[in-house]
Amino acid sequence: MINLADYLEAAREKVAPEVWCYFEGGAGDEVTLRGNVAAYERWQLRPRMLVDVSAVTTATTLLGTPVASPLGIAPFAMQRLLDPEGELATARAAAAAGALMCVSTLTTRTHAEIVAAGAGPRWFQLYVLKDRQRTLDHMHEAREAGYSALVLTVDAPFIGRRERDLRLGFQNPPPDLDLPYANLFEMTPELTWRDLEWIRAEMPLPIVLKGILTREDATLAVEHGADAVWVSNHGGRQLDGVAAGLEALPEVAEAVAGRCEVYVDGGIRRGTDVLKALALGADAAFAARAFACALAVDGESGVAHALSLLREEIALGLGLLGCTSPADVTRAHIQPTPA
Amino acid sequence: MINLADYLEAAREKVAPEVWCYFEGGAGDEVTLRGNVAAYERWQLRPRMLVDVSAVTTATTLLGTPVASPLGIAPFAMQRLLDPEGELATARAAAAAGALMCVSTLTTRTHAEIVAAGAGPRWFQLYVLKDRQRTLDHMHEAREAGYSALVLTVDAPFIGRRERDLRLGFQNPPPDLDLPYANLFEMTPELTWRDLEWIRAEMPLPIVLKGILTREDATLAVEHGADAVWVSNHGGRQLDGVAAGLEALPEVAEAVAGRCEVYVDGGIRRGTDVLKALALGADAAFAARAFACALAVDGESGVAHALSLLREEIALGLGLLGCTSPADVTRAHIQPTPA
Amino acid sequence: MINLADYLEAAREKVAPEVWCYFEGGAGDEVTLRGNVAAYERWQLRPRMLVDVSAVTTATTLLGTPVASPLGIAPFAMQRLLDPEGELATARAAAAAGALMCVSTLTTRTHAEIVAAGAGPRWFQLYVLKDRQRTLDHMHEAREAGYSALVLTVDAPFIGRRERDLRLGFQNPPPDLDLPYANLFEMTPELTWRDLEWIRAEMPLPIVLKGILTREDATLAVEHGADAVWVSNHGGRQLDGVAAGLEALPEVAEAVAGRCEVYVDGGIRRGTDVLKALALGADAAFAARAFACALAVDGESGVAHALSLLREEIALGLGLLGCTSPADVTRAHIQPTPA
Amino acid sequence: MINLADYLEAAREKVAPEVWCYFEGGAGDEVTLRGNVAAYERWQLRPRMLVDVSAVTTATTLLGTPVASPLGIAPFAMQRLLDPEGELATARAAAAAGALMCVSTLTTRTHAEIVAAGAGPRWFQLYVLKDRQRTLDHMHEAREAGYSALVLTVDAPFIGRRERDLRLGFQNPPPDLDLPYANLFEMTPELTWRDLEWIRAEMPLPIVLKGILTREDATLAVEHGADAVWVSNHGGRQLDGVAAGLEALPEVAEAVAGRCEVYVDGGIRRGTDVLKALALGADAAFAARAFACALAVDGESGVAHALSLLREEIALGLGLLGCTSPADVTRAHIQPTPA
Repeated sequence: MINLADYLEAAREKVAPEVWCYFEGGAGDEVTLRGNVAAYERWQLRPRMLVDVSAVTTATTLLGTPVASPLGIAPFAMQRLLDPEGELATARAAAAAGALMCVSTLTTRTHAEIVAAGAGPRWFQLYVLKDRQRTLDHMHEAREAGYSALVLTVDAPFIGRRERDLRLGFQNPPPDLDLPYANLFEMTPELTWRDLEWIRAEMPLPIVLKGILTREDATLAVEHGADAVWVSNHGGRQLDGVAAGLEALPEVAEAVAGRCEVYVDGGIRRGTDVLKALALGADAAFAARAFACALAVDGESGVAHALSLLREEIALGLGLLGCTSPADVTRAHIQPTPA
Repeated sequence: MINLADYLEAAREKVAPEVWCYFEGGAGDEVTLRGNVAAYERWQLRPRMLVDVSAVTTATTLLGTPVASPLGIAPFAMQRLLDPEGELATARAAAAAGALMCVSTLTTRTHAEIVAAGAGPRWFQLYVLKDRQRTLDHMHEAREAGYSALVLTVDAPFIGRRERDLRLGFQNPPPDLDLPYANLFEMTPELTWRDLEWIRAEMPLPIVLKGILTREDATLAVEHGADAVWVSNHGGRQLDGVAAGLEALPEVAEAVAGRCEVYVDGGIRRGTDVLKALALGADAAFAARAFACALAVDGESGVAHALSLLREEIALGLGLLGCTSPADVTRAHIQPTPA
Repeated sequence: MINLADYLEAAREKVAPEVWCYFEGGAGDEVTLRGNVAAYERWQLRPRMLVDVSAVTTATTLLGTPVASPLGIAPFAMQRLLDPEGELATARAAAAAGALMCVSTLTTRTHAEIVAAGAGPRWFQLYVLKDRQRTLDHMHEAREAGYSALVLTVDAPFIGRRERDLRLGFQNPPPDLDLPYANLFEMTPELTWRDLEWIRAEMPLPIVLKGILTREDATLAVEHGADAVWVSNHGGRQLDGVAAGLEALPEVAEAVAGRCEVYVDGGIRRGTDVLKALALGADAAFAARAFACALAVDGESGVAHALSLLREEIALGLGLLGCTSPADVTRAHIQPTPA
Repeated sequence: MINLADYLEAAREKVAPEVWCYFEGGAGDEVTLRGNVAAYERWQLRPRMLVDVSAVTTATTLLGTPVASPLGIAPFAMQRLLDPEGELATARAAAAAGALMCVSTLTTRTHAEIVAAGAGPRWFQLYVLKDRQRTLDHMHEAREAGYSALVLTVDAPFIGRRERDLRLGFQNPPPDLDLPYANLFEMTPELTWRDLEWIRAEMPLPIVLKGILTREDATLAVEHGADAVWVSNHGGRQLDGVAAGLEALPEVAEAVAGRCEVYVDGGIRRGTDVLKALALGADAAFAARAFACALAVDGESGVAHALSLLREEIALGLGLLGCTSPADVTRAHIQPTPA
């Protein structure tokens, strides 16, 4: 296991196809899924030489939360399908590494169990359900459980058509899997910007809007008081044919213009991918599949190793870029790859 | 049969190669044929979030005809080669779905039979023949049969050189196939814009010009009173090396500037393809091969299923795009894919 | 044999590899060789509709010579290696078709033999040799033999490094092949623009400069009295890594600005390739490999068939483009293919 | 062995994989490694005709050193792993050809041995070590040994992650290999522009900065008195995802604006690659892998043959470009390849 591609290959081998399809697959023809990965090759890093890089740190702070690295673990659902410990394995590895973990509403472990896994930076991803009261309950439970920010997913009024699941007969959620908080059929297609005001009023924690892909929505997010905008196409699993996260990032970062934090996910496999995201205006990047693979292959140890590999890649990349911390990376460190 | 690509693959398996060549093949090196499909990947959808999409409709109105979806069935010839019921199977499925069907001059069923298949939105595609009187007769018969618009094909003064047919010995028309109205050798290469005035005078129905690929011809079409311009390269079957329908659409839509309706065909395989066409200025999209495959694979049921699949894809796509109807889709919902 | 690609495939099968390498191969890594063919896909035709195309002609006039088609046979050497009749077979087929044939200095047949093959439009390609007197003799012999223009090759001060020949041991010229006029070791690397004045003074026939790839040289050619500029990279056989003929054509045509005729060669396989060349400013296109393949496969009949196929493709293409003759094709009939 | 690609293939066959990985591999996903080669196809040469090229020379002068060709041998480490004679074989071939050889700090032969191999143009590549005194010693030894310039590598504060080595267990340096001067663990990550002033003060030889990829650093190099800027990504072995040497060359050449010499390396396989580098502003190009392959395949004879092949390719290319010496090649001889 030399890099994350090794984990991806090993996970494909290990996990039953009719389960793995859910984690690896995307919507429709998977154009966006492939685009997420391919986007990184369309940007080149511009390294600066003769900078003293004897002391490099990957640590940064996101919404006031100190984290060991600008790469967090994006929410991904139903982790028990990959490892018996499920979200606990991920939480333990993340806490040990000081890495930010974002826990999905569709967790197969309770907040109490996850909190017991160890102290570490942790956010809660929230799906707004048709049942508003239960949504309120989720928010308050998350806050009480010690999550330090709320990540509101805004790109899932409906679930994308994931044809791998249809072909292999994957049922979502699987009938024998316990989901303590919600399942995907409970999400509401009625959510609007006005609801954000209602959530804002109920929730003192910082609020992140996850699933923004346009400058227009980024501007609205800032205007509605979002503390961060998370550029995402939901791992290519919602509307096929939209921009890669990295492709949408520059217009979002420009629209936000420093008024709130900006994150991005989709296709992260390398430390240099994270550096490209930072250079294009992100405060942090997130990955789900990379960690899902590691979890599937080797449980908690796998996630720990993946976090460590990526953090080392980020540190080495910073040094070779002539930067000593994530904050040093600027737009001048990147340029389009010649076509 | 999860999507239209499945139907394409199944049709290739099922239909005899020396017949299927006619339906799948294009002219020359098939550069344009492949280009029609590839064009869609060069555009990305720009989805808007936090819009209430609990009520999405795909219904719209084309030239005054209410239709269930902005995707119609383009004219394709000699459907009995694919299914014993031929155009009747297509007509029944379309009528049941409320989908617009455009019947070819080269039909293997009579207007009377098709009308008897059920009430539904239906247009007639007209080839102007060397014999003008028969052309007139066709127009009047179509009107009497209840077709609600006339689609005049303008890109076939000659028939394109389709080399798959030559290699496999496909005779067009096949000697044992009855074509009640005309065959392709009867078309005229003399048709000009002035003839359009003559047809206009004879025909009170709305007139659509099918086969326009340039802003210049789009402007002329409007000036000559066309009710709609249909951007098409005839499925890549006429002049190889021309633009994909989707590629020509923006310049045509710009030239038309809302003065008449605009349609496009070529390469439609997905609901998101239709959404991209709408975003680039089309009022509707049309597909022929997609439905030819479905007809070949499963007759009327196949066409019904294809219509249903595509309509569901369009509806889901609208919702994920933050739109509640085809009319909501604008130029702001699309952008070029980074090269 | 449905198209020229069929002839290429058949020629590869039929001709001994250690001979075919010479005809098919290019210099270096053959980047330019492949580029010549690929260039055509980067342009799209813009067809106009509703034009009366009941009477289409491919005939045109080049330097005062009436020709049946705007596609001529480019000079290619040592045709007896492909067919026992060699240049005679090509000359007979060309004469019968009224097609322009350009005879190479490296012919394996004498002018007398070629002239006896039949009356037809015919030009002579001249290599300037180290021996100036023999060069003069060639010019005068060509004029006396009835060639109606002189095509002076200017891109071969040295012979390109053709590695297929080196690998397969092809000797150029083959020791047992009679070349009545010259072989490639006799060409001069000293030729300059001033020599053109000398040739001009000696030669009343129109002079074509073959091998121009830049606007600078095109301008010099006009200033030095060339009657035509032939855009060519010598079939990718001289300097690897230069532009395709079609790529260099627009800048040359712009520099020439109608002050002399402009031709192009390289990669022509289709009638639509010729139409693209016309649209980008060429008065004619030339092909060598296409006819070499036909000659190799079926001698005179092969060349006749190739000429006929391509002329039919040009005629059909003109009609579908809304043009009735080569002169109708303009810059408005072409646009770049979206990247 | 017709060209350098032949040597690459033969070297892959001959050298043990667990050693060859070190010489052929790059960092990370090897995007930059592949990009170095691919960059050349994105530029086209613009050849000028009717220039007297009967006398072509490849000779030029670099930092006052006359060299037989504008292509030098870039430093590559541990040459004894490829041939028992190691750097001596390379030095003998280079001296015989009058080619510039740049000797690596990580040489497996001593300066005394290399000097004894014959008189020829020779520069010394210097890694600044954590131990500054030893660095000083290296500089002075190099000067005394007769090297005529110092090439300071500035892109290696840390060693890139080369995953082929990790997979095949290549230890760097191999435990049984004697490195008389240093190994890669001794390099300093603390080097800054201020250190350049210190080196400048200690060293009267011309100083080349190797590893510059941006206009910003090129400007700083000139401002800090560098005699030459060497555009390089270290053969794709340091930070993966940066520009190819050829891609970074134009901005560096523009920033330098003739104030010092400019070189480039990365992906050179052909004489035309060198010509493209010259046209984009380089005074010389360097290759390491090309010569490493030749050394591995056939020792001193291999390097001699590779030098001869490439010099012949450069000479032929100059002639076909209408140039009689490297200095004749200008920005007007190149253009971007159409995308």
